Amino acid sequence: MIIVVKNEGDKKKLDNLTNWIKNLGLDIHYSKGETSTILGVIGDTSKVDIDLIRSLDIVDSVTRIQEPYKKANRKFHPDDTIIDVGGHKFGGNHFQMIAGPCSVESETQIIEIAKAVKEAGATLLRGGAFKPRTSPYAFQGMRGEGIELLLKAKAETGMPIVTEIMSAAHLDMFRDVDVIQVGARNMQNFELLKELGKTDKPILLKRGFANTIEEWLMSAEYIMSEGNEKVILCERGIRTFEPTTRNTLDLSAIPVLKEKTHLPIVVDPSHASGISRLVPPLSLAAVGAGADGLIIEVHNNPPKALCDGAQSITPSQFSAISQKIGVMLGLVGKRMD
Amino acid sequence: MIIVVKNEGDKKKLDNLTNWIKNLGLDIHYSKGETSTILGVIGDTSKVDIDLIRSLDIVDSVTRIQEPYKKANRKFHPDDTIIDVGGHKFGGNHFQMIAGPCSVESETQIIEIAKAVKEAGATLLRGGAFKPRTSPYAFQGMRGEGIELLLKAKAETGMPIVTEIMSAAHLDMFRDVDVIQVGARNMQNFELLKELGKTDKPILLKRGFANTIEEWLMSAEYIMSEGNEKVILCERGIRTFEPTTRNTLDLSAIPVLKEKTHLPIVVDPSHASGISRLVPPLSLAAVGAGADGLIIEVHNNPPKALCDGAQSITPSQFSAISQKIGVMLGLVGKRMD
Amino acid sequence: MIIVVKNEGDKKKLDNLTNWIKNLGLDIHYSKGETSTILGVIGDTSKVDIDLIRSLDIVDSVTRIQEPYKKANRKFHPDDTIIDVGGHKFGGNHFQMIAGPCSVESETQIIEIAKAVKEAGATLLRGGAFKPRTSPYAFQGMRGEGIELLLKAKAETGMPIVTEIMSAAHLDMFRDVDVIQVGARNMQNFELLKELGKTDKPILLKRGFANTIEEWLMSAEYIMSEGNEKVILCERGIRTFEPTTRNTLDLSAIPVLKEKTHLPIVVDPSHASGISRLVPPLSLAAVGAGADGLIIEVHNNPPKALCDGAQSITPSQFSAISQKIGVMLGLVGKRMD
Amino acid sequence: MIIVVKNEGDKKKLDNLTNWIKNLGLDIHYSKGETSTILGVIGDTSKVDIDLIRSLDIVDSVTRIQEPYKKANRKFHPDDTIIDVGGHKFGGNHFQMIAGPCSVESETQIIEIAKAVKEAGATLLRGGAFKPRTSPYAFQGMRGEGIELLLKAKAETGMPIVTEIMSAAHLDMFRDVDVIQVGARNMQNFELLKELGKTDKPILLKRGFANTIEEWLMSAEYIMSEGNEKVILCERGIRTFEPTTRNTLDLSAIPVLKEKTHLPIVVDPSHASGISRLVPPLSLAAVGAGADGLIIEVHNNPPKALCDGAQSITPSQFSAISQKIGVMLGLVGKRMD
Repeated sequence: MIIVVKNEGDKKKLDNLTNWIKNLGLDIHYSKGETSTILGVIGDTSKVDIDLIRSLDIVDSVTRIQEPYKKANRKFHPDDTIIDVGGHKFGGNHFQMIAGPCSVESETQIIEIAKAVKEAGATLLRGGAFKPRTSPYAFQGMRGEGIELLLKAKAETGMPIVTEIMSAAHLDMFRDVDVIQVGARNMQNFELLKELGKTDKPILLKRGFANTIEEWLMSAEYIMSEGNEKVILCERGIRTFEPTTRNTLDLSAIPVLKEKTHLPIVVDPSHASGISRLVPPLSLAAVGAGADGLIIEVHNNPPKALCDGAQSITPSQFSAISQKIGVMLGLVGKRMD
Repeated sequence: MIIVVKNEGDKKKLDNLTNWIKNLGLDIHYSKGETSTILGVIGDTSKVDIDLIRSLDIVDSVTRIQEPYKKANRKFHPDDTIIDVGGHKFGGNHFQMIAGPCSVESETQIIEIAKAVKEAGATLLRGGAFKPRTSPYAFQGMRGEGIELLLKAKAETGMPIVTEIMSAAHLDMFRDVDVIQVGARNMQNFELLKELGKTDKPILLKRGFANTIEEWLMSAEYIMSEGNEKVILCERGIRTFEPTTRNTLDLSAIPVLKEKTHLPIVVDPSHASGISRLVPPLSLAAVGAGADGLIIEVHNNPPKALCDGAQSITPSQFSAISQKIGVMLGLVGKRMD
Repeated sequence: MIIVVKNEGDKKKLDNLTNWIKNLGLDIHYSKGETSTILGVIGDTSKVDIDLIRSLDIVDSVTRIQEPYKKANRKFHPDDTIIDVGGHKFGGNHFQMIAGPCSVESETQIIEIAKAVKEAGATLLRGGAFKPRTSPYAFQGMRGEGIELLLKAKAETGMPIVTEIMSAAHLDMFRDVDVIQVGARNMQNFELLKELGKTDKPILLKRGFANTIEEWLMSAEYIMSEGNEKVILCERGIRTFEPTTRNTLDLSAIPVLKEKTHLPIVVDPSHASGISRLVPPLSLAAVGAGADGLIIEVHNNPPKALCDGAQSITPSQFSAISQKIGVMLGLVGKRMD
Repeated sequence: MIIVVKNEGDKKKLDNLTNWIKNLGLDIHYSKGETSTILGVIGDTSKVDIDLIRSLDIVDSVTRIQEPYKKANRKFHPDDTIIDVGGHKFGGNHFQMIAGPCSVESETQIIEIAKAVKEAGATLLRGGAFKPRTSPYAFQGMRGEGIELLLKAKAETGMPIVTEIMSAAHLDMFRDVDVIQVGARNMQNFELLKELGKTDKPILLKRGFANTIEEWLMSAEYIMSEGNEKVILCERGIRTFEPTTRNTLDLSAIPVLKEKTHLPIVVDPSHASGISRLVPPLSLAAVGAGADGLIIEVHNNPPKALCDGAQSITPSQFSAISQKIGVMLGLVGKRMD
């Protein structure tokens, strides 16, 4: 960590700062220039609050050299992490297609879709039981009952299931869930992340719609620091000024993350745009950018869906995407298995 | 709600849409034009998911006429809500100064600051016990013990206390807290909001750093819809592309909210900018914009603070701000009481 | 255009509004509800200032049904526009690779690169003569002399050239340029757009880094409304809060634009990210999203480049991208010719 | 400037970088650590392109210690710049009220408003002759004729006039204009800035709606580097995700700029919000934040205005604002003169 301190600053404030740094067990290397002094801070700076230092009167700028995340950092774990979910692998040269409806609505519905998406090329089944909705008056999901129905669909088709958690108080209900999803709005619900870190379940961690890549990796670190290193990152769009799409899918994040972390990264093109017509081109784009998988909303009868149905594509559209991706994967050194 | 439907669209899809709307107990008024048909949806549209409709293939645009929030809506509650906290009122022509350290660190520290800020013009005491930190390796607050220390400072000075909650599982510890704060990162932690809605405590609801004003009011609605109507909104800056300040304080939100809602609104100039030198001008600006109060970080010894200390001002700087605000309040029709 | 007017509003203000609308030659269809009245405005509303109406006291909301652009609108021009540049076509099922250095630096340099990129699969040559630089102290390009050198490279290789204009006062120097580029910072330099609309040159119109898709199409409309319909759009990233990349490439814009306009769209992955390592994956992603071409910075000796050199890839890296794209184009129904 | 270079990087690339830096006449101080080497670059780094260096493969991060602007920099010009416009001073402890209509529409209109705003407390007259409009089909202003009418209003009232330029080709028409305004969309029209730098007119430089404070100061530097140091900055809102206001007024920019530059700063609350009801509270907020003046749209008959009329307030509302500001100025150490 490099701290540039103004020379005209108060000597006593500088002493306070350097003592505080040394008390954290870190060393300082000084380099005095004409108008400013450079402090090179040496040691494990991951526990240092960079915002605090940046806001000090005497400080001109602070630059972190060492990233604040360790367990998620590729520097300390050069090989890709490969996470096995019921025989389906995330990471490395593997590619997975997760598909299913926005919400679980009934036993017939979820089993029917599960069969259809499996037939169309999906390897895992997704479906919302707990639904984070902006309005308290909107449908909040079938909750515990929804999870039961997903498990029936799993029993019927053999597909592992992915579903979202909204509170650590519901963890008991997720006992038989294969992958627990953390939604964008809970990406910095640190109390929830810590509890998930104490489980041994793969966690699909969606990016908060206004969070930086570094903050996202720090949330992965929250889970990993508690012992659970099975984190799958999921890019689902960030909030920008552009109104034609619900969010702006940040595909540059894929190659950036591939450098910074060893964790697998999947892309959700359905929620990013909120427009089902954009799902096929954005799916191919995600593969081109290097994603390790896709999570796509598929509905057997879009106009009837209780929620988000219209961002869903049909099983036959999904099948067409799968086939094109099958052709593309060779170009990016991956295979669907 | 007005839905503009493309005329070239599939007739069956239009029927699906109109049936779905009617099943929600709403009426439709049709107006067919040359290239599009306008559906005027009549009735209580607050439970309608506007995003769903917007994303349908046949839909060109959707405009909500009725706001999706009711209990927070000034239309249905024209008078300002006034929330009394231990004799200190928020809303109407009242103005409050909440002050205190970022984190509670020790009994001596919190009592010393509490006395100093009371002397300097503060009416409520703030202090962090549970701290949401980006890094799992950073100081996470004294948690339950911190709340005990705040209660001691309250006993000593008579000031009501404001402190942040991070999980409904901790609610028991907040039994004697006067105002429970929901931080920016939890503004859409809907499970937490619902639980707070079942309490009778005033809730200080910070705006998420990437949430719109409408989403913020919907989060207030979550609390209010469960029965607790004592919500104080707190603007604390939004995430933008400008890097010199941590966030961009959105003061336009104050007069906008004054039109849309009857709830009181306070401003946090400390966290918005992350720079203590900006706190005095932004405090005056907030008063000019029409805020009902300020929440300011004050520390008796900034360089020693464990966290965010440098965005804190000293009690004497706080006193200078209070005095200027005292002069300004007359111009905006408010008084400190 | 649908205008929702509050019923509690001033009757006289409503009359002012409706008279003003009628004076623009438009008709109004009224529909009075309980709390608001809906005005359906019929006729050519492209000259109506939606911001003006939105900001009126009595107005609750305004929704444009008809897009404000006409010549750029796919509704009135359903077939893809195909722009021929020296035998290389943009639009339809054609795909072009534009490549070259950030800046023209010398005759040897530009001719050497031109040959190398042609060999590696490029069909047009790009190179900056006039350089928009944030700092007045930075290298501003070789200007007129740079264009002369580009023309020599064209004479040598037969490749058409693309280069940026910064002021209509320089138009004379662009007489023999094949495609005139308008940079992101000049996307709303309306006086420049009007002058370019009077030429018969193809214009490569880059998206402003903070402009919406609608604003971008309105800028295309400025050029087209003066008579020049040969506009090629170029997505090059938008400004967001994410700091790891210079800008966030908005690939969702490609399929969105394909619905809204008949104009060809190319993608610039070099400037979006500012990191050459990201150019290969983002190039494949752009093809997957449906782009009609790519414009890529290529430099024969990156470390020596005077400007932006480091976002450049080498000719051999460019060749590898070209080959992969060759394989992919079949999947998206395009071919390089 | 501090450059952190990865140790695992290519030795030859590092040599290329250091040679390139030395060729710019700069010195380098090396400090080799375990995983990275720190290059302290000493000398005038204002001509170094930080983006170029940041994007090099071997570079981990770059931090500028010295700001890239010199003439606009308070470090080299500690005293406030005071700009005199016809006896009205901008900067220091002075405060100015600029008022007038969005567009000049007729001689009667502009003279009538000029008299009304002067009576109501304005010290300078603004009015648009050249209007930057998103749509080519919208009213583009009276152009040269509009300037003639402004000059008549000046002759009638004695008020100096402020009006916007859109192209250096129009400079002749601005011969008798007192303050030339550069609009947000032209803030990085560098060719225009250079031409304005060759005049001796005060320039009111609006912030681009998506430009950082540093980019804004660099645009001021473009003008100043050509010899014209009379630049007045004008904050007018930045583009964010919040849709209720047209832009988000960034009042934190005022105290930030007061530290970074000696140039005066005025605020435009009319264009920022696009809602006239917000102008009074935002005006007081701007004064509280430390602005050196306000530029407000005032119209004698808002519903009739040709453009942006609805963001205008009436002369009597303007008078009420002026009076409150008169009371507030003492608190911020300023006076209207």
